[in-house]
Amino acid sequence: MLIEKPVVTFLDELASSAPAPGGGSAAALGAAIGAALVSMVANLTVGKKQYVDVQEDIKRILARSEGLRHRCQDLLERDVAAYTEVSKVYKMPRDTEPEKAAREAAMQTALKNATAVPMELAEVCVQILNLCPESTQKGNKNAVSDAGVAALMAEAALRSAALNVLINVGSIKDEAFVKKERARLDGLLAGKAALKEEIVKDVEARL
Amino acid sequence: MLIEKPVVTFLDELASSAPAPGGGSAAALGAAIGAALVSMVANLTVGKKQYVDVQEDIKRILARSEGLRHRCQDLLERDVAAYTEVSKVYKMPRDTEPEKAAREAAMQTALKNATAVPMELAEVCVQILNLCPESTQKGNKNAVSDAGVAALMAEAALRSAALNVLINVGSIKDEAFVKKERARLDGLLAGKAALKEEIVKDVEARL
Repeated sequence: MLIEKPVVTFLDELASSAPAPGGGSAAALGAAIGAALVSMVANLTVGKKQYVDVQEDIKRILARSEGLRHRCQDLLERDVAAYTEVSKVYKMPRDTEPEKAAREAAMQTALKNATAVPMELAEVCVQILNLCPESTQKGNKNAVSDAGVAALMAEAALRSAALNVLINVGSIKDEAFVKKERARLDGLLAGKAALKEEIVKDVEARL
Repeated sequence: MLIEKPVVTFLDELASSAPAPGGGSAAALGAAIGAALVSMVANLTVGKKQYVDVQEDIKRILARSEGLRHRCQDLLERDVAAYTEVSKVYKMPRDTEPEKAAREAAMQTALKNATAVPMELAEVCVQILNLCPESTQKGNKNAVSDAGVAALMAEAALRSAALNVLINVGSIKDEAFVKKERARLDGLLAGKAALKEEIVKDVEARL
């Protein structure tokens, strides 16, 4: 598994011309970093007597952020698998008409699967971002900049996931599918850049 | 070294209440991901006959992006060291006046060092972001979304580094130092959110 590799090996493989990991896995790792920072802020708040009034809220945030982090880690692996499948289909023979048809059908299936992974990541990123205002407001004040970094990473990962959805749907011929997925993506993106800026502004006011 | 650890261990330690790694290392890793993606786009373009006209440009970009990635990897380690030093100083005794004075002097030195690391990271992030327009325009068209993810990650890392500079300078008493560092940071941030949006728009137009 990719997440079992050393960080430096992951980065070396990302930088290489190997088909995977690519931007999709990079986005998943960015999102996992964001979720991990929400968890860190919560872990620095749990059990602290200055924060006795928010213990239940913080524990709820921590359970959510850790769940989301593990989903990002899974999505990182699933993105590699989905992209490896697309790469395999690209290498299918296309000398005869039946071969061309088989390759095209396999490609459409592989592209739909490769779209589902960043779409799910985009949903997870929105959920991470939605945890950040409360993390900023209720979390340990000494870690408030970390809550801001969490929001910045989650939003960049959301936009990155969106680019990965868009590059895949660009080659999908099922127009109804494409229309539906684009609308779903637009819904996920709506207002999130503004939310991120609000969170960062709130963090800066507390520094 | 932190980057020798498995990705999942890095994320587990980031999520924990351990003083380091924190938001500074997270920002450095985000920037490294951005630089690695610029390298990936270049590596997918080098030696390809469709891109014969841009080979020299691409090789120059690759040399730059790999140099910047390795600086991010160094900064990730240096951030941990700087923050560990600050944590140590927090634990110095402060029972007597001489102890208080020694602790305060050590704190000011540690905070200035802990400011230098994210400031250098912010500079590196700007350089990564500045490589992205050319990577988008000249790199392998099949990897254009990856050039967009590179810009998103580099800009989020820049803003994250800025939050880490700001939280540190908030406790530094040398007003001239604080004023100078804030001005330097403002210079690095100026226009970069707009540049990132331009790059993403250009990427979306090429999808």
